[in-house]
Amino acid sequence: MTTLQNDTFLKALMRQPTDYTPVWMMRQAGRYLPEYRESRKTAGSFMDLCMNAQFATEVTLQPLDRYPELDAAILFSDILTVPDAMGLGLSFEAGEGPKFERTLQQEADIKQLSVPDMAKLQYVFDAVSSIRKALNGRVPLIGFSGSPWTLATYMVEGKGGTDFLNTKKMAYARPDLLHHILEVNAQTIIQYLNAQIAAGAQAVMIFDSWGGALSHNAYKEFSLNYMQKIVAGLTKTAEGKVVPSIVFTKGGALWLEAQAAIGADALGLDWTVDIGQARARVGNKVALQGNMDPAILLSTPEAIEKEVASILASYGHGHGHVFNLGHGITQWTPPENAGAMLAAVKKLSKAYHL
Amino acid sequence: MTTLQNDTFLKALMRQPTDYTPVWMMRQAGRYLPEYRESRKTAGSFMDLCMNAQFATEVTLQPLDRYPELDAAILFSDILTVPDAMGLGLSFEAGEGPKFERTLQQEADIKQLSVPDMAKLQYVFDAVSSIRKALNGRVPLIGFSGSPWTLATYMVEGKGGTDFLNTKKMAYARPDLLHHILEVNAQTIIQYLNAQIAAGAQAVMIFDSWGGALSHNAYKEFSLNYMQKIVAGLTKTAEGKVVPSIVFTKGGALWLEAQAAIGADALGLDWTVDIGQARARVGNKVALQGNMDPAILLSTPEAIEKEVASILASYGHGHGHVFNLGHGITQWTPPENAGAMLAAVKKLSKAYHL
Repeated sequence: MTTLQNDTFLKALMRQPTDYTPVWMMRQAGRYLPEYRESRKTAGSFMDLCMNAQFATEVTLQPLDRYPELDAAILFSDILTVPDAMGLGLSFEAGEGPKFERTLQQEADIKQLSVPDMAKLQYVFDAVSSIRKALNGRVPLIGFSGSPWTLATYMVEGKGGTDFLNTKKMAYARPDLLHHILEVNAQTIIQYLNAQIAAGAQAVMIFDSWGGALSHNAYKEFSLNYMQKIVAGLTKTAEGKVVPSIVFTKGGALWLEAQAAIGADALGLDWTVDIGQARARVGNKVALQGNMDPAILLSTPEAIEKEVASILASYGHGHGHVFNLGHGITQWTPPENAGAMLAAVKKLSKAYHL
Repeated sequence: MTTLQNDTFLKALMRQPTDYTPVWMMRQAGRYLPEYRESRKTAGSFMDLCMNAQFATEVTLQPLDRYPELDAAILFSDILTVPDAMGLGLSFEAGEGPKFERTLQQEADIKQLSVPDMAKLQYVFDAVSSIRKALNGRVPLIGFSGSPWTLATYMVEGKGGTDFLNTKKMAYARPDLLHHILEVNAQTIIQYLNAQIAAGAQAVMIFDSWGGALSHNAYKEFSLNYMQKIVAGLTKTAEGKVVPSIVFTKGGALWLEAQAAIGADALGLDWTVDIGQARARVGNKVALQGNMDPAILLSTPEAIEKEVASILASYGHGHGHVFNLGHGITQWTPPENAGAMLAAVKKLSKAYHL
């Protein structure tokens, strides 16, 4: 493997000294980029794209070519590859979001669920290898998965949502069934992330997009406990280097103390929490990644720089901060505004690392 | 006016001793009740219903007739009556949610916005008077309004949403324009709630349904500050009695300390926060209302009673707790499950008030 030329991101995740605050953007390879929209014109469905290592490699590298400030690349893929490999029949209808042909609501269906053969996800590992090769050591590559709870909401509801009434009904009326789904998901995700690491991922992130919909007690029981199990099962080093892990529960900032105790190296933060207060709450247990509201990228370069300054100042001096948005960049973002954010982080963050 | 026969709810809001923990349910007059669906068959659009004092009275009393355990009634209305009175042209399309004909995105439109003549909202005050008369002193009547920020999201976006990109873009690119909308909203809501109090509302609640979508700093600037202004402008006593106020930011439990300082008597809590931890954070500054996940009402009476017990135990001994859901009851709730929750609160809460 080629030598890594920029390990600022990996160092920050491990709370080691860096010269500046590294930065990347969730969903940085995406529809806000004209070059991405151009690449998509000749491709098929969204799942076709994820299954095409050449396309995944091309679009993963697009933001890096446009923005030299980026300190990490992230695999172009989707969290729903896993339930798709479990045979639930995923499709993306235009403007409608994901849909599954089959849902897990009947006891018989749930009891048949098992860890799928990782060969069904070989296309993901192929994309990781291909991207890693194309990166040629420029920046580290992040692999990822959805959390067991987040995947379960899609598997039970059969689609995206916000209130997850069927999944929560199961959580309270038949917790045994939901725990079976979550356990299968956790075991699958351990194999899935470890295979990404084996294929070349240099850090991994677990996206718990819907953990914030749970009650205080239910979050620990149905989401956090299973993420802890995954973190414990992850490959800790590859190519002689530590592979750091990031856990991100959107809407989960009330529970940072509990998150900081599950063994992950870093926590993702959405924009609802002040990052300085978050740092005070987790101490030096974990690094923090975040947390600008992506909506701010729709405003002006001046407002963006002001917000970057505010977040950097709130985190304060010292290491362990990876700058990011608090959620994926929206498709309506003017690319020059994303550039303004990245430039501001590079310019303003050096002062906090002296 | 008739003597109030059950003031448990009002006492709890003012953290005075009560014999048990009072309880009501957000959206308790609603589609989960067969008698409500029956009443709606003969009526027109949702706004027609809100404008019909006879209908509003009938459905407000339906849950009280079914569930003798309820300790409060809430005006049947909608938070969007206010922007409708401002001339934005509200309609509810079947299965689509609210839509406005006109939005506030252009500077000229925004600068023309002003406090509407309260005569345009007389139908709301008529409904309050009518319901109060029909209640005949059984339980207190709650009046309500949306928060300035929450109403602004509908006024700028023209519809409901979850990410509020246009409103947030304005917040960062043209804060002066958004502050004008929020100021007009706040002044309007003060008049609106005070007119509800004059018509007979015995407590008032401000629903900040979308404050939780804001960043830490933006929440204070664009939502909380304006709710503070409203609370300061509210009529404090009517008919010789204190009129308590409740402020509820859904998704806002990170900011309870700041909310507790704006002068409201009580704070609403959604289910993401442990109510005992919330109580420890706000001390004896405010009462707390909440906070069971409405999804639990889809499960079983046994699971519901267990969750009621857990919430009551977490709040612990002493006064100042109004039991409620953490959000409106869903239309899929079996009415007997709502009854199971109410019965459990009555049965289990006495032990905490000895």
